[in-house]
Amino acid sequence: MPVNLAPPNPDQLLPVKGVRLGIAEAGIKKADRKDLLVMQLGEKARVAGVFTLNRFCAAPVVLCQSHLAVGKGIRALVVNTGNANAGTGEEGLNRARRTCAEVAKLLGCAQEQVLPFSTGVILEPLPVEKIVAGLPAAVADLKESNWFDAAQAIMTTDIVSKAVSKQIRLGDAMVTITGIAKGSGMIHPNMATMLGYVATDAALSQPLLEALVRHAADRSFNCITVDGDTSTNDSFMLIATGETGMAEITDAASSHYAALRDAVTEVSQALAQAIVRDGEGATKFMTIAVEGGASEAECRQVAYAIAHSPLVKTAFFASDPNLGRILAAIGYAGIADLDVDRLKLYLGDVLVAENGGRAASYQEQDGQRVMKESEITVRVLLGRGSAAATVWTCDFSYDYVKINAEYRS
Amino acid sequence: MPVNLAPPNPDQLLPVKGVRLGIAEAGIKKADRKDLLVMQLGEKARVAGVFTLNRFCAAPVVLCQSHLAVGKGIRALVVNTGNANAGTGEEGLNRARRTCAEVAKLLGCAQEQVLPFSTGVILEPLPVEKIVAGLPAAVADLKESNWFDAAQAIMTTDIVSKAVSKQIRLGDAMVTITGIAKGSGMIHPNMATMLGYVATDAALSQPLLEALVRHAADRSFNCITVDGDTSTNDSFMLIATGETGMAEITDAASSHYAALRDAVTEVSQALAQAIVRDGEGATKFMTIAVEGGASEAECRQVAYAIAHSPLVKTAFFASDPNLGRILAAIGYAGIADLDVDRLKLYLGDVLVAENGGRAASYQEQDGQRVMKESEITVRVLLGRGSAAATVWTCDFSYDYVKINAEYRS
Repeated sequence: MPVNLAPPNPDQLLPVKGVRLGIAEAGIKKADRKDLLVMQLGEKARVAGVFTLNRFCAAPVVLCQSHLAVGKGIRALVVNTGNANAGTGEEGLNRARRTCAEVAKLLGCAQEQVLPFSTGVILEPLPVEKIVAGLPAAVADLKESNWFDAAQAIMTTDIVSKAVSKQIRLGDAMVTITGIAKGSGMIHPNMATMLGYVATDAALSQPLLEALVRHAADRSFNCITVDGDTSTNDSFMLIATGETGMAEITDAASSHYAALRDAVTEVSQALAQAIVRDGEGATKFMTIAVEGGASEAECRQVAYAIAHSPLVKTAFFASDPNLGRILAAIGYAGIADLDVDRLKLYLGDVLVAENGGRAASYQEQDGQRVMKESEITVRVLLGRGSAAATVWTCDFSYDYVKINAEYRS
Repeated sequence: MPVNLAPPNPDQLLPVKGVRLGIAEAGIKKADRKDLLVMQLGEKARVAGVFTLNRFCAAPVVLCQSHLAVGKGIRALVVNTGNANAGTGEEGLNRARRTCAEVAKLLGCAQEQVLPFSTGVILEPLPVEKIVAGLPAAVADLKESNWFDAAQAIMTTDIVSKAVSKQIRLGDAMVTITGIAKGSGMIHPNMATMLGYVATDAALSQPLLEALVRHAADRSFNCITVDGDTSTNDSFMLIATGETGMAEITDAASSHYAALRDAVTEVSQALAQAIVRDGEGATKFMTIAVEGGASEAECRQVAYAIAHSPLVKTAFFASDPNLGRILAAIGYAGIADLDVDRLKLYLGDVLVAENGGRAASYQEQDGQRVMKESEITVRVLLGRGSAAATVWTCDFSYDYVKINAEYRS
């Protein structure tokens, strides 16, 4: 079961002026479930995104990047679950194009103004006819208040849907930020997570929007891992509809930009952490905070070594303070000149290791107490400098194996 | 249960002249089990080793390297299971030194002529008094015919002990090579595996012995992974006792060296593969062969990305040809300019993917047939050059989680 993660409250999800969402049941993989989402954007909307670095990236990821590069302005996004349209070659690109063309026809825009997204099984042909047949119902359903249903329509192995809203005041304007995401397995985003969409009605120049989507991704979706597998379909999109009537933000040094940046980052972090809380088979939510590094890169390296270690993750599942496994992971993280005698390891508030070995004050019962909690912070002080990085992850349980052994059945 | 791995046949394990082995039950972690091994070497014996690159390497690893550097000649090795003496700081070094000193006293050599090895739980103090108390019994037990018991004495979570013998003729001399190894989890050796010892009665110069141990390690223990966790204690030792009466091999270009090199490598590979076959929770043995790379390094990168992917490993456990997961792993392996359209993926003899997608000839039932086997080869042709690399691994089952969740209980 997800770790301290409640389904979103529909009443607390705020519409974003300039974004209308429509959902349909297209029967892509299974009957009677929402599996198709269309998002229609207003005329003033700007879009920026970050995508997976997986070389086997999916056809829709290729098309998204090419449609964004065309620069005609994006008028719609279309998302299907049940099939990733990845590892599908030239025919996969054709089917993604066909999907965009159908959406464009229904909404009256150009095919290059539509961004396609897919999630689900890899290496199977996209059932594009089912998608095309489902699109009119999704378009007929378009409305601003559909965020809750939209979050459900993009789920795969997710147990709980993920959606977050936030409002901030920028001068006279009240700005809304609402986002949805999906993801549960194959989670080790490298640029973005499986699928994440955050929209705001703020007005923002395209360069600032591009900067902001990277800023937010680097502090949210790029800081999580469930199983260390980087998906073929990771996409994180930031939409600014510019419908508040406020003056466009064009200065990265302005207080408006800083406030918006922090709010978007906060929403993105909440969505990213929700993905970890709903990680496949997760029973614990772990924050791996590495400090005192010579660079942020080496801190991330250490944090991910811990977060990816199956031995560390199974020990957390068992609530067993077998903490030598964390030291082993730090040791093989790839810092060639790491001086283990300068390192300190904390589990929650308990000092576990220093001077190259177990802390004199450490007692098994203290470690045991922290390990029983459902939210645990592992803190590593490297003693090499002042850089830091944080990664969020979950434990590794029988259910992870079960979910992934039975995924296609 | 181990995959196609029978316990060694005691009658087929050949003594190596110049190596005597003694075993004792020291009660280090549990009572009534063999957990202490002493190996005594003849006067002419030479030793070379490779060790873990984990920065949190164990006290005995530090001491081994320092004793080998002293260069007085190694007369004995002492191995305990039940405790890794890793993450134990200065006191860990003291206890490892104390163990060597006691062995030296019993055998009449210098402390620096003894190499210590430990395997078991990390971050707990080595119960050195139990080891010291057990040593006289191990020394009293020293004999050349003890390889079978020695293999048992170094086991931790291993289900089956690992030992292999081989004989080759070099000119007039019949040369014997016998090796033992242990390892089951925390297996992603980087220089060597948990513990491996291969001895031969051949005579070999020290430089050639050093070259040979690296040659063999790079083709055996450095090509396996169970869970991607590099241990703190990995050590692989090659012993040449020089007791056959043959002339010492000093020329790397000689036919004797080539024959010995290939035989030692073969024994090392059999031991390394035995570790994977007995990998924690393993139900399948997988060979990941990557060919057509621009360099061996990138082939290894791709092979390890596949071999480490929890999603790939759980699909193999389920015998589910969910082969898109392999493409995803290839895609995130880190080859930035990989052209997925040139890549071919085979499962056993079945062509699964080419031209960036599923092969036209591929049928699910063919993939299903191969997946049901207990030994499976995944072959990736990168289409970038002529380099190749092979990695051996196992699947990821409920039992892996169970074994590692309950490891200390």
